[in-house]
Amino acid sequence: MKRDVKAIVKEMTLEEKAGMCSGKDFWHLKGVERLGIPEVMVSDGPHGLRKQAEEADHLGLNESIKAVCFPTACATACSFDRDLLQEMGERLGEECQAEDVSVILGPAVNIKRSPLCGRNFEYFSEDPYLASQMAAAHIKGVQSKNVGTSIKHFAANNQEHRRMSCSSEIDERTFREIYLGAFETAIKEAKPDTVMCSYNKINGEFASENHRLLTEILRDEWGFEGYVMSDWGAVNERVKGLKAGLDLEMPGSGGYTDKEIVEAVKNGTMDESVLDTAVERILNVVFHYVDNRQEGTFDREEDHKLAAKIAAESMVLLKNEGILPLKPEGKKIAFIGKFAEQPRFQGGGSSHINSFKITSALDAVKEVTEVTYAQGYDIKEDKTDEKLHKEAVRAAKEADVAVIFAGLPDAFESEGYDRTHMRMPQCQNTLISDITKVQKNVVVVLHNGSPVEMPWADDIQGILEAYLCGEAVGQAEVDLLFGKANPCGKLAETVPYKLSDNPSYLYFPGDGKTVEYKEGVFVGYRYYDTKEMLVRYPFGYGLSYTTFAYSDMQISAEEIKDTDTLKVSLKVKNTGNVAGKEIVQLYVADKTGAASRPVKELKNFVKVELQPQEEKTVEMELDKRSFAWYCTELQDWYAATGEYEILAAASSQDVRLRKTVRVVSSQEIPLHVHMNTTISELMENPKTNSVIQELASSLMEHMGGSQDGEEGTAAAEAITPEMSMKMMENAPLRAMRSFMGMNGEELEALIKKLQEAASM
Amino acid sequence: MKRDVKAIVKEMTLEEKAGMCSGKDFWHLKGVERLGIPEVMVSDGPHGLRKQAEEADHLGLNESIKAVCFPTACATACSFDRDLLQEMGERLGEECQAEDVSVILGPAVNIKRSPLCGRNFEYFSEDPYLASQMAAAHIKGVQSKNVGTSIKHFAANNQEHRRMSCSSEIDERTFREIYLGAFETAIKEAKPDTVMCSYNKINGEFASENHRLLTEILRDEWGFEGYVMSDWGAVNERVKGLKAGLDLEMPGSGGYTDKEIVEAVKNGTMDESVLDTAVERILNVVFHYVDNRQEGTFDREEDHKLAAKIAAESMVLLKNEGILPLKPEGKKIAFIGKFAEQPRFQGGGSSHINSFKITSALDAVKEVTEVTYAQGYDIKEDKTDEKLHKEAVRAAKEADVAVIFAGLPDAFESEGYDRTHMRMPQCQNTLISDITKVQKNVVVVLHNGSPVEMPWADDIQGILEAYLCGEAVGQAEVDLLFGKANPCGKLAETVPYKLSDNPSYLYFPGDGKTVEYKEGVFVGYRYYDTKEMLVRYPFGYGLSYTTFAYSDMQISAEEIKDTDTLKVSLKVKNTGNVAGKEIVQLYVADKTGAASRPVKELKNFVKVELQPQEEKTVEMELDKRSFAWYCTELQDWYAATGEYEILAAASSQDVRLRKTVRVVSSQEIPLHVHMNTTISELMENPKTNSVIQELASSLMEHMGGSQDGEEGTAAAEAITPEMSMKMMENAPLRAMRSFMGMNGEELEALIKKLQEAASM
Repeated sequence: MKRDVKAIVKEMTLEEKAGMCSGKDFWHLKGVERLGIPEVMVSDGPHGLRKQAEEADHLGLNESIKAVCFPTACATACSFDRDLLQEMGERLGEECQAEDVSVILGPAVNIKRSPLCGRNFEYFSEDPYLASQMAAAHIKGVQSKNVGTSIKHFAANNQEHRRMSCSSEIDERTFREIYLGAFETAIKEAKPDTVMCSYNKINGEFASENHRLLTEILRDEWGFEGYVMSDWGAVNERVKGLKAGLDLEMPGSGGYTDKEIVEAVKNGTMDESVLDTAVERILNVVFHYVDNRQEGTFDREEDHKLAAKIAAESMVLLKNEGILPLKPEGKKIAFIGKFAEQPRFQGGGSSHINSFKITSALDAVKEVTEVTYAQGYDIKEDKTDEKLHKEAVRAAKEADVAVIFAGLPDAFESEGYDRTHMRMPQCQNTLISDITKVQKNVVVVLHNGSPVEMPWADDIQGILEAYLCGEAVGQAEVDLLFGKANPCGKLAETVPYKLSDNPSYLYFPGDGKTVEYKEGVFVGYRYYDTKEMLVRYPFGYGLSYTTFAYSDMQISAEEIKDTDTLKVSLKVKNTGNVAGKEIVQLYVADKTGAASRPVKELKNFVKVELQPQEEKTVEMELDKRSFAWYCTELQDWYAATGEYEILAAASSQDVRLRKTVRVVSSQEIPLHVHMNTTISELMENPKTNSVIQELASSLMEHMGGSQDGEEGTAAAEAITPEMSMKMMENAPLRAMRSFMGMNGEELEALIKKLQEAASM
Repeated sequence: MKRDVKAIVKEMTLEEKAGMCSGKDFWHLKGVERLGIPEVMVSDGPHGLRKQAEEADHLGLNESIKAVCFPTACATACSFDRDLLQEMGERLGEECQAEDVSVILGPAVNIKRSPLCGRNFEYFSEDPYLASQMAAAHIKGVQSKNVGTSIKHFAANNQEHRRMSCSSEIDERTFREIYLGAFETAIKEAKPDTVMCSYNKINGEFASENHRLLTEILRDEWGFEGYVMSDWGAVNERVKGLKAGLDLEMPGSGGYTDKEIVEAVKNGTMDESVLDTAVERILNVVFHYVDNRQEGTFDREEDHKLAAKIAAESMVLLKNEGILPLKPEGKKIAFIGKFAEQPRFQGGGSSHINSFKITSALDAVKEVTEVTYAQGYDIKEDKTDEKLHKEAVRAAKEADVAVIFAGLPDAFESEGYDRTHMRMPQCQNTLISDITKVQKNVVVVLHNGSPVEMPWADDIQGILEAYLCGEAVGQAEVDLLFGKANPCGKLAETVPYKLSDNPSYLYFPGDGKTVEYKEGVFVGYRYYDTKEMLVRYPFGYGLSYTTFAYSDMQISAEEIKDTDTLKVSLKVKNTGNVAGKEIVQLYVADKTGAASRPVKELKNFVKVELQPQEEKTVEMELDKRSFAWYCTELQDWYAATGEYEILAAASSQDVRLRKTVRVVSSQEIPLHVHMNTTISELMENPKTNSVIQELASSLMEHMGGSQDGEEGTAAAEAITPEMSMKMMENAPLRAMRSFMGMNGEELEALIKKLQEAASM
C-alpha cells in the first residue's frame, strides 16, 4: 500500500501539522484520526527494548516492560562482526513489532573521545569507521523488520557534563573525519528512518537549531530522507529548529511549541512549506511502519540465548599467561567478587532495561564445576569492607585458581554525568593486589563500560574484559573461561595506562560553557600511535586460545585512480589446535605528506572463522574515502597523489603485512598566487615551477644569510647550498622587494605572470 | 640636553617625515642634516655585536667587524642569573658606544614551543617568566649605557618554517599567558627603547600590521613609549603598518614605501598625525642616544674573559655518576670529537658573530693536563667516517676516561629553517655508543642550540650540556670538567625523551599557511608535568658538585587579597664540601578549580651562592600575576578566590617544600542568567544560590533518570541521590520546561527573578 502523503498533508489544518511536529507525550507521536494518521510509539534502545508500560504517566517514570538486555555497544563493537550486529538488530526489530513500537532509539555512534564520558558504554568506538560499520549493521537488522531506528546523538555529543548547554568547539576537518564520520557512512549505507539530534551546541549553535548540520550536511550532502527528532528536551527555540531541519520535538511540550509554530506561519516569519516538509517526512516513516506491521512474538527465552551468544563473541581476552581456559578437573576454583553473583551488565539512563532474567557467572558455572565463592567487596563502597576482604583473600589462598569478578559500580558511570577519574573502586584494586600476594593463579574478569586503570595488570595471569555484556553475561563468561567458547573480540578502543595519557585530557570536559576539541583528528589510537606512546592495550587488540598467521598479502594494482576501488587480499591461518576467529584489520598510512595525518587509520576489517590448521584467503576493498582526508579548502574529501601504505594488522600496534599503493588524484587544489605565496609553493606546483625556477636560483644566492639583518661573510662561511635552499623556499614573493631590490611594479608583474601560469 | 622633538617634527616636510619611517639602507636610519637629525646605526645582536663594516654594500653582505661572541640565549637562560645577564648587557652597551651603534637588536624572547625551531638557540626558554627576567636584565644592562635594545620578535614567531607568511593561530588566553608573557613583563620592567615586530601573521593579521598588538596591547595596555621597527623585510603593506603602530621599516625600501606614505597623507587615507607620532617616537630614541654618547673602547680580551665566565655559569651538568670533576693526576684522558678542537658555539643567521678569538676545549686543557685527541667524526656528515671512528674508539679504549665533544653541526640548526627531527648526526650517536662498549668512564659534552635525543644517556657516566656557549666555550668546559668551576646552570627548557613527546608535535610547523597552537597554555613543563609524563631531564634541572638542602619555608600570610604581595622565604644549605650556587624555583599550583591550568607554573626564582656547609635564607615575592590566569571573559588577569600551593623546588619535578595560601579576589566574573544557564552555575553563585535551592531539590527528584527518555523504576533502583544530584547540576534552566512541566511564561518569570538576584 503506497500512501499519497503529500495529499494527506494538504488536508491537514495548520494546527494539525504543527501538532505532528511534537510528541503527544513522552513516548507517542500525535495522530489525526479523521485522516487515518495513527498515534505511533517510539521507545528507548539500543541494546534492548525499554518500552514504558501502557499506564505510564506523562513523565514516563513508570516501569518499563520486561525485556531482554543484550550486550551494550561498548561490548558489541569488540565483536567487529557486522553479521552479528545485524542479527541483534533483527531480533530487536521483531521485539518492536511484537510490542508495536514504530522506532527504537539508537544506535548511538558518538566517538569515545575520553574514557570519562558517562555514556561511553552506549557508544561503539573511538574509531569512526568501526562505529559506522557496527551502526549500519544494527540499522539494517532492525529496519529489515520494518521498524525504524534513530541513529544518535547527532552530533559531537561526547560528554555528559553540561550536555544540554555546552558547545563542542571543533574544526571542520576534525568534525568531518572523526565526529561526523560514523554517522555519514552508516546513514549512507543503512538509511536509518530517523536521526536524533543531540543536546549540545556545535561551535556555538545548538545541534537542534543547526541548519548546516540538519539540512546542508545531513540531507543535501548525504541524502538522508527520514525525519530528525530531538533528543528528549534538546529543543531550545522550536521555530528556529524547525527551519534548521528538526522535524519532531520529543517529548511533547504540552502544546506550547505547537502554538509557536502556528504563530510563526501566521505572522510570516516561517514559510508554511517548511512545516509541510517536516510533516511529510514524519508521516512517511509513520506510514511505512503502520503499513508494514508484522505479526510477531517476543520470545524472551530465545532472545536471552542470543544475548549469551553475542556476549561470548564480544568479550576481549586481554591477558593470558597460560592460565586460560581453566581446567576444572581436580582443581579448586574460587570465584571472588560480588559481580560473580550480581554482575554489572548495563549502564544507567535511558538505555536501562528491565531485564527479563539475569544469568550470573555463579549461576552458569554450576553446569561446569563446583566453585567456592566469596563476595570480596561491597559494590556501593570505595573503601574496603575488612570482613569481606579477609574472607575473599582466604578463599583465594585456599584455591588453586582465583577468578576475580571486578569492575565499575553503577554510580561510577551513567548517562547524565561523566567520570572524574579512570580508577576502579579502591576496595577492588586492593583486593586484587592482596590476592596476588597469596595466589599465583589469578584471573580478573572486568565489568565496565569504559576503560579502567589496571595497576595490578602485571601481577596477574589472565584478564577477560567483559565490558557491560547484557543479561546473559555470566553464561558467556563461564563459556569463555572454561573454553567452551574461544575468545574472539578485540578492543574497539585503546586502554591507556592512565587517564592523563588520553588525548583529550587537557581539554575535557571544558570550562562549562565550551569544550575545545583541540586534539583534532588525533583521537584514540590515532593519537597514541602518532605520538609513539606506550599503552596498556592497543586498539584492535585481543587474544584467542589459538594463534593466527598472516601471509601472502596482495593488492589488485600498484597504482589506482582515486575513483577506483582497490582489492586487498591475504591469507590467514589458524596455527593452533582449537577453532577460533580472527579479526583482520586494514589500516592506511598516508605517505604523501600532503596533510598532517595520523600514522594510520582503520579503513576495513574482516572477521574470519578457522578450524585448527585451516587457512583462508580474506579479501577487503578500499576506495577513495579509505585514502582521503577532508580538505577544507576544497570542501571535499581529498586523496593527494602519492604513496599510501596498506597495513594488514592484528591490532593497531601489531602490523603483520604491508603493501604500498600509489593513488592518483582526480582533484586539484587551486594555487592562488599573491605576494605572500612562498617560493616552495610555486616550485611544488608544476604549472608555476618553470616560471619560478630561474628566479629561485638567483634568489637563493641572495638569501644565503638572514632576513633579520643580512649575513656577513663570516656567517656565510657556515652556510651550505642546502641551508640556502631551505631558507629560500620559506620566503614569499614579497621578499623579492627587500632582498632582490625588486620594486613594486616589477613584483606585481611577476605575480601576474605566475597567476596566469597557475590558471592555465 | 633636552630636545623639543615635537618642534623638530613640525619643521620637517612630509617627505622628510615619511623618510624617517624607513631605513636609509640595511643598517642606518635616515637623517635630516638641516634639522640636526643624524643618521644613526642599528646592528644585530643579541649575544654580541654584528656590526657591518663601513664599506658594506646595500644588501649588507660584507663582513662584519671582529667582535666577541658571548653565550647565546639558550645558554645564558640556564644561568637563571639576572645580575649576570645585566652584566653581559652592560658590556654589550659599552661595545656599542665604542662602535657608535644606537640600538643593538635583541634580546629575543620568543617561547620555545618546539625543540625543532631553527632559532631556538637565540631564545631563552619555554617559560615566559624566566624569559622575561633574562630579557629584562639584558635590556637594563645595555640601556644603562644609553644604547637602545629591540626586544623581539613580537610576537608568536615560534618557528622559521614559512615565517614570513604563516599565521600563528592562538587563542587569546594562550597568547597572553605564554607568548606575550615574556614580552609584557620585560617591557614593563625594563622599558626597551624599541620593539621589533615579527614576520608572521597572528590569527590572520601580520604582526607588522596588527593594530591590536602594536598599539592596543603594546602601548595602551603596557605603556610602551619607544618605537616599533619591523623585522628585516617584515613589512607587507606599509601604510596599514604605520597606522597599526609600526614606526620604522627596516631595511629601507629604496624610497618606494616612503612614497606610499606621502601619497596616503595627501589623498587623505591616513591622517598626518599618525606619521607625526611615529617620527616623534623614532626621534626620541635617536636623540636619547646621540645626546648621551659616551667615550668607550671595545676591549676584546676583557670581553672574552667575561664570555668565559658567563659560559661557566650557564652550562648544565645533566648527569654525573661520580665521574666529574675529572682528576687528571695519573689518569690518561682522551678528548674525542671534532667539537673539542673546533667547537660549535653559536648559530647561523643574523646573530652570527665574526668572533674575535675562539677558545676550544683542546686549547684550554693545555693549561691543566695533557690529553690525547681524536677527531672521531666529520662535522659535515651524518654518516660515519670509518677511519676517524676507529681512531677515536681506539683512543677512548686506551685512555682511563673519554670525554666526547658532540652536538649539532651548523647545518642542523639555523635561523631561516627548522629542524625536522631531534637527533644528532648518526655518526656521533654511533661513536658514543661504540665507545661505551670499550670504555667505562665516558663523559659527553653537548654543543647544541636546542635539545637532542640521547639514546646513549643511560650508558654513560656524565653529561655536560654546553649549549652554544660563545667563543670562550672551551675555557668554561675545561674549568667545569676539572672542577675549577662548579656547574650551576639549570635547564631553561625540558629535554624530552623523543620528539613525539613534545606538546606541539602534532601541530608543528602547520600546513604551510597556518600553524595552530592547539596545545594552548600547555607548553614545555606545563605539558609534561600536567600530563604526568616521564622526560629525560625536566625544566629547571641541573646538578652541582655539591648538594643543597631546603628547609623552613615561610610565607608572610596564610591569606592575602589579590592586590597584596606575598613574601616567601626558605633556608638553603650547602651540604657538600665545595662552594656552589643553587637555583631555587618557586612554582604556583592553582587549587581553586576555576580554570584548566597547568599543575604548576614558575613564578619566581633566585640563585644563591653558598660556601660548604653555609646556610642562607632566601626571600622571594609573589603578587597577583603569580596566581592569575588570563580570563577572556573579564579581558583581564584573574586570580580566583581559593587556595594555591606554593612549591619551592630544585626543578619542575623536584619539589622540596610546599605551603598553601588562600587568595581572595577583588574581581567578580558576572553571571548572566538565561535559559541555558545551568543549575550548578546558579548554585555556585552566592547571589542566585538561595533562589535556586528550593527549585533544585524539586528538580532533582524529577531528574532522577534521563533526559533521553525518562527512567522506569527498574533503572531508578540503580540511581542514588548522588547520581541524581550530578545529573541535575548539568541541566540548564530550559530543562524545567521538558522535565518539570513548567510553561514558557513560568520559565521566563524564573529567569527574570534570577537575573535580578545576580545583578544585586
